Amino acid sequence: MERRIEICLSPALIPFYELTNKIVVIVDIFRATSTMITALAHGVKSITPVADLETCRRMSDQGYITAGERNGKKEAGFELGNSPLAFIEGRYKDKKVAMTTTNGTLAIEKSKPGSAEIILGAFINLQATADYLSTKQNDVIIVCAGWKGRFNLEDSVYAGALSCRLSNHSKLHCDAVQAMENLYEQNAHQLRDFLNQSSHAKRLQNHNIEDDIDFCLQSDVFNIIAKLKGDELVL
Amino acid sequence: MERRIEICLSPALIPFYELTNKIVVIVDIFRATSTMITALAHGVKSITPVADLETCRRMSDQGYITAGERNGKKEAGFELGNSPLAFIEGRYKDKKVAMTTTNGTLAIEKSKPGSAEIILGAFINLQATADYLSTKQNDVIIVCAGWKGRFNLEDSVYAGALSCRLSNHSKLHCDAVQAMENLYEQNAHQLRDFLNQSSHAKRLQNHNIEDDIDFCLQSDVFNIIAKLKGDELVL
Repeated sequence: MERRIEICLSPALIPFYELTNKIVVIVDIFRATSTMITALAHGVKSITPVADLETCRRMSDQGYITAGERNGKKEAGFELGNSPLAFIEGRYKDKKVAMTTTNGTLAIEKSKPGSAEIILGAFINLQATADYLSTKQNDVIIVCAGWKGRFNLEDSVYAGALSCRLSNHSKLHCDAVQAMENLYEQNAHQLRDFLNQSSHAKRLQNHNIEDDIDFCLQSDVFNIIAKLKGDELVL
Repeated sequence: MERRIEICLSPALIPFYELTNKIVVIVDIFRATSTMITALAHGVKSITPVADLETCRRMSDQGYITAGERNGKKEAGFELGNSPLAFIEGRYKDKKVAMTTTNGTLAIEKSKPGSAEIILGAFINLQATADYLSTKQNDVIIVCAGWKGRFNLEDSVYAGALSCRLSNHSKLHCDAVQAMENLYEQNAHQLRDFLNQSSHAKRLQNHNIEDDIDFCLQSDVFNIIAKLKGDELVL
């Protein structure tokens, strides 16, 4: 029997999907999951995703490096914002990080009930994620973090890209898979140009963080998997 | 100042959009809006969309022709289901129809608060709808009825098609517009084949109602607009 692949285009649509026994791939390209994967690849010990700012901020008392972002900007009282580049020098090696972001951490929280496993997806570890999923039998649901409940382009196109790399599965019952695979395939030759037009890319460009966009749109930089274990994301 | 066009991919995402002063275009290609537009084009006096089966069924006591569908099938105790073909012989000319469907009537109900106007969209009156909107100044939001809260292919691709036919508007802030315009443009040359793969087309094919699918995927059959006036849809 073939397994199912589904794409959920917004955390607000999670209630319309059955998560039981599925592997959930959370994706927030700009930038939560790209940043978390980068941090873990560069030696961070664990990342605790936190839904609200205040709880996250207070975790510095327990020795956590705190990272807090809302609407694309670093929040006051946090050591870090939501930039993957902050982690690539290895300054936070072996540290525990607590992180709260506009969309990504909420998507993780909402995907917990019933799911077999939660992993993070981003272009920077696309093939590693596809390879990992190919060793598993579970049905897969790719949950796009979106933008404040709405559809966003980069998460959805990533979902199509991942789905395209998974073979031997039934996707015919999920229209979002069909649409996003097509959108990815039609634009794969010009992916950066296409995703640079997304509303969140423009939002980030307004904040002068184009380097982050370029970084997040690279494919297959890291050959690692980021997985939720209890309340922590680890390698 | 350019007006905005937005696409809301599921009724469940309506809370994340501002409807005030906007014209809402409701779309449920298979088959509610296609059927309603066909009925009005063939002389039905009005259609009252009703959210629940029981209320709709009882409206036959008040002289309404009742139409009731769930999960693609006609419900017991209704004169009609949700087939546009039932209306093309003109048998229901000058009648008032009460109709309840799985997704479309709910989308209409949820789009009422604050909106300037609600009209129906379908491929069969695509150009008429585009022409009508070009006479208006309001921002436009296209609401896809979807399938039980989820994204569906045919409604979303229609939304992209309509958006493509509207000029002089700002769509850069809405990723769904960008995605669906692209999806439509890339598949416009093979629209029937593409939409025939959708999960709901397959569902309807299983019920042997391929004629309905073919009918609903025709473009520009009717040069009319269907508009909500009070609780009734009229020409």
